[in-house]
Amino acid sequence: MHAIDGRKIARTIEERVKKQVEGKSLKLVTIVVQGSEESWLFARLKDRACRKVGIHHEILGLDTEKQEPIEQEIEKLNRDESVTGIHIQLPLPETMRYTELVGKVALQKDVEGMHPRNLGAIMLGRERIIPCTPKAVLTILHHETIPLKGKNVVIVNHSTIVGKPLALLMLNRDATVSVCHVYTKNLASCTKQADILVTATGVRGLITGEHVREGCILIDAGIKEENGAVYGDADESARMKAGAFTPVPGGVGPVTIACMLENVVEAYKNIHKGP
Amino acid sequence: MHAIDGRKIARTIEERVKKQVEGKSLKLVTIVVQGSEESWLFARLKDRACRKVGIHHEILGLDTEKQEPIEQEIEKLNRDESVTGIHIQLPLPETMRYTELVGKVALQKDVEGMHPRNLGAIMLGRERIIPCTPKAVLTILHHETIPLKGKNVVIVNHSTIVGKPLALLMLNRDATVSVCHVYTKNLASCTKQADILVTATGVRGLITGEHVREGCILIDAGIKEENGAVYGDADESARMKAGAFTPVPGGVGPVTIACMLENVVEAYKNIHKGP
Repeated sequence: MHAIDGRKIARTIEERVKKQVEGKSLKLVTIVVQGSEESWLFARLKDRACRKVGIHHEILGLDTEKQEPIEQEIEKLNRDESVTGIHIQLPLPETMRYTELVGKVALQKDVEGMHPRNLGAIMLGRERIIPCTPKAVLTILHHETIPLKGKNVVIVNHSTIVGKPLALLMLNRDATVSVCHVYTKNLASCTKQADILVTATGVRGLITGEHVREGCILIDAGIKEENGAVYGDADESARMKAGAFTPVPGGVGPVTIACMLENVVEAYKNIHKGP
Repeated sequence: MHAIDGRKIARTIEERVKKQVEGKSLKLVTIVVQGSEESWLFARLKDRACRKVGIHHEILGLDTEKQEPIEQEIEKLNRDESVTGIHIQLPLPETMRYTELVGKVALQKDVEGMHPRNLGAIMLGRERIIPCTPKAVLTILHHETIPLKGKNVVIVNHSTIVGKPLALLMLNRDATVSVCHVYTKNLASCTKQADILVTATGVRGLITGEHVREGCILIDAGIKEENGAVYGDADESARMKAGAFTPVPGGVGPVTIACMLENVVEAYKNIHKGP
């Protein structure tokens, strides 16, 4: 049982990105709508990461309850040639339809990999820009030199930004994939089949020793803040049983941000590749 | 244990489609490239189905080994206002890249639901045109009034046209989903968890009584021709154990063709909806 050092993996990525960015003019704009404390926190983390590697970053705070003004801002950013990447910060207010907003972002500036065409490309096995959290999971497994073909991968999350794209990415790599969630009848009986267990529920301590098979790889993308500290989905008994696990904090989180930086570089390359 | 009558379900759909088509001018073009016997057979089945409901249908046979001439034909059909739906018949010759070809079809004329943007829409939970075989599976389950929320669905197929989109469609309906395939280590231990088992491998008799749980719903989308007869993936022992099953022939096949007719109507509506 060993802890996977997400911060170290992130640093490796950042160093690579820094070299790729050198001498080029990349600019990411992060849109924060009616910023909750959480969304500002994430936006600031990205701001810091961008500065570290030499990517220009602007946070565009919008204080509207309507969707149209945001769409207009996105259109402006689409046309602005100095902007090479656009990112809509989650969580959004409940009235906002994220999937519609992200569909308005110019395909080439979609650094989240959430444009319908980028998601469709995953389904077609022709991966382009990949959503950041699933990309972080793949990056960590690659870094740990864990092969995926034929492995039992269980994902506890069926959201549009994590579970669904990750399931397809794993299928593209010939893993056997199961996706569980809040409506799953017997979670433990499903998760115990996992060679690789990825959890991203934000329910602190949901995954215990009873849920994991001895020696499995436990990737914890859950995050829950309580009294100023953050916690993952897996408790200590689950981690002790795993062959390797990602801690929270310092696991999937920093790698996800580093993967977003990589996506900003990818988008820049696509824009400058020409027709 | 009862057999689900796919032909009957197909007839119900066809009658509905016939009414929707009345007085309108719908035209589907099916592209058959270097037609194998199999692809011509499927194209002819579609031709017959179209005629039955009053949809104009043309089979465009192309005898090229190159991709460009096909793409040019697709462009022509995209511009042709009399054509309301375009369909690329599978199987294609091995040299052809289906996913690239289908990406050239105008989004609004994609009756297969395989345009990257239509596939991306499934991932985003905003389903538009759905691929025909997955749509047939959902239609059959709906017809049998089988709820999906919280059910264990196991899919034996991880292709772009069946397994991957079906997995997402099931997740959109809050089923717990597992996807198995040729690299799965222990198929039976996975399939035995299924409340609903969907198989589409084309390996005759792959699924036996050992693979299914007593009373499960067995949807057999496999098809294998041998000496002029067609066989599904499930053998008799699997069917006997199932609570309900789709036979081959007369199960998923006819419903899939009927679902394509529905997609042709959907596409027509989208085209005439205006901006």
